[in-house]
Amino acid sequence: MADLAVEATATAADPANWTCPAPLRDQPVVVMGHGGGGALSAELIEQVFAPAYGNALLAGMTDSAVLHLGGARLAFSTDSYVVRPLFFPGGCLGDLAVNGTVNDLAMSGARPAYLSAAFVLEEGVELTVVERIARAMGAAAETAGVTIATGDTKVVESGHGDGVYVTTAGVGLVPDGVDIRPQRARPGDAVIVSGPIGLHGVAIMSVREGLEFGIEIASDTAPLAGLVVDMLAVTRDIHVLRDPTRGGLGASLNEIARASGTGVRLRERAVPVPDEVANACGFLGLDPLYVANEGRLVAFVPREEAEAVLAAMRAHPQGAGATLIGECVEEHPGMVVVATGLGGTRVVDLPLGEQLPRIC
Amino acid sequence: MADLAVEATATAADPANWTCPAPLRDQPVVVMGHGGGGALSAELIEQVFAPAYGNALLAGMTDSAVLHLGGARLAFSTDSYVVRPLFFPGGCLGDLAVNGTVNDLAMSGARPAYLSAAFVLEEGVELTVVERIARAMGAAAETAGVTIATGDTKVVESGHGDGVYVTTAGVGLVPDGVDIRPQRARPGDAVIVSGPIGLHGVAIMSVREGLEFGIEIASDTAPLAGLVVDMLAVTRDIHVLRDPTRGGLGASLNEIARASGTGVRLRERAVPVPDEVANACGFLGLDPLYVANEGRLVAFVPREEAEAVLAAMRAHPQGAGATLIGECVEEHPGMVVVATGLGGTRVVDLPLGEQLPRIC
Repeated sequence: MADLAVEATATAADPANWTCPAPLRDQPVVVMGHGGGGALSAELIEQVFAPAYGNALLAGMTDSAVLHLGGARLAFSTDSYVVRPLFFPGGCLGDLAVNGTVNDLAMSGARPAYLSAAFVLEEGVELTVVERIARAMGAAAETAGVTIATGDTKVVESGHGDGVYVTTAGVGLVPDGVDIRPQRARPGDAVIVSGPIGLHGVAIMSVREGLEFGIEIASDTAPLAGLVVDMLAVTRDIHVLRDPTRGGLGASLNEIARASGTGVRLRERAVPVPDEVANACGFLGLDPLYVANEGRLVAFVPREEAEAVLAAMRAHPQGAGATLIGECVEEHPGMVVVATGLGGTRVVDLPLGEQLPRIC
Repeated sequence: MADLAVEATATAADPANWTCPAPLRDQPVVVMGHGGGGALSAELIEQVFAPAYGNALLAGMTDSAVLHLGGARLAFSTDSYVVRPLFFPGGCLGDLAVNGTVNDLAMSGARPAYLSAAFVLEEGVELTVVERIARAMGAAAETAGVTIATGDTKVVESGHGDGVYVTTAGVGLVPDGVDIRPQRARPGDAVIVSGPIGLHGVAIMSVREGLEFGIEIASDTAPLAGLVVDMLAVTRDIHVLRDPTRGGLGASLNEIARASGTGVRLRERAVPVPDEVANACGFLGLDPLYVANEGRLVAFVPREEAEAVLAAMRAHPQGAGATLIGECVEEHPGMVVVATGLGGTRVVDLPLGEQLPRIC
């Protein structure tokens, strides 16, 4: 997988956009792209972590692991959050840390139940900042219906952190009969996205770079577990769910195509890109398909269930903008292509790293 | 609780030894001691996190939360590891990150099963360093009989980290009939420590400060879950288990005394302090009771079970040095006292913070 990933990314349209210049094997040191959720992150997992841990669970490339424990089928997931700045339109580090892990659990079809929260604080950060983040976490947990059950706090000297880093982990229960993972994508599946894309990435970019787009663009950070419950009420046979965070929809679809050995074909005009995202991306030279989301999911569902699933999604606040954007095909296995409005197609490659470091 | 903690610490014997000078309410910013596992950490939990999260689980002050999920009783725990240096005699950040969470789960009587591992890497750190740490984690997981099932990697810019921070979380199964928590300490309980204390803290200190004690002192980092299994085979009625990490045995015993409203009386000469730890502490002006351990536990067990539990512990490699060090008493509730060799007693107070920042 790793070599394939490297070869594929070597042809990426505009490598100058990416935050790291070369793949792992030529890089004896960590570069920003190793944290970007793209090809370099995948190489790190495949070449360093999976061999070191000696187990197959990590190789599944799922948002959460599904485990058997005490007769229960559990989803288990973790993420560290290092977003800059800590506060941004639509949310803060605290919302992301709760919603992100809630969503990773939900992407296995699980009902998220309990979270842990570990803080690495930098000496000198104002306690009111810590308090605002913790309160945002409490509020987000309440909204998502989960309990923050355990935690930890470490402090590092000034100059060895960036105010606050938070790592959440979470556990949830996977309902009987549910088997949602990237390997289950099948030709014929409908590909659905739950709403407009690119809002989180553009929101972070606008505050970090001090850009003005004439209108405040807010992050889409939100919990998706309730939406998934409503989707599963239509059919338990949802094949794949993924929240396209780092690397955006483009990275998520590539991971699904590779894991399942199928192709993905999108209709460019169907992909819901808000005008303000399109404008910001045009200005910044970015592709909205690679911009991070924190409150969206992409679903692969059997074609015959697509209309009913779409209807259920649109009836939920987090799925009001749900749209059919393409399909899973037998052609070009492992690849994602977009049918452009002009009748042509272009390949959407796995990015090397995230366009914008520290997006979450 | 917070005010009590503040008042108690105001009388600590030698406050100049502590890494932070004043309690939370006078400190609008984060100080190193907030991560020290002592009174300042407790204040942060009580004044910031518990109110923000709005739940009672955190207030239990246990090493791991015990939860009900899908008919199973689970222990769930997390810790971030920011130790300096990354490698030290006897182990590295990777061993600590696995053993620490394994031990926190075991302190609820749980059989640890699955861990998560989230890395925050600093741009520019050598990949071989990451690989060594990951391999140590894999080896420690194998030794402890747990699987690292899920993970995450983020990268922060050079100057915003310290090479590698790792956050582990873990889940394990609590056997039926087991109810181990600090609140269950009872007057009459025997207080047992599983082996010599102070080795981890002195090992870190020796490499960090470049001190030579004539003999290399190695960290005691080790998984304790197997030892706990053997103890529970003697009796399920173990009242309290705690691994005395940050803040050492002194902090752990104070937390137990306060949570249970009992007193703890130690016999000073019974506390197993290795000569090299005693010498190093003497040289550095530290009290071995407050020095961190990473492979020891303290147990409160009914007096009538003490001999059998001790025998089982001594038959296990991690409990070979198990020793009865004192008892739980009705007198001086919430306080820990040491009967000195001279017939007097002294109070062992809850430390404000850890004597040595970033010990784990």
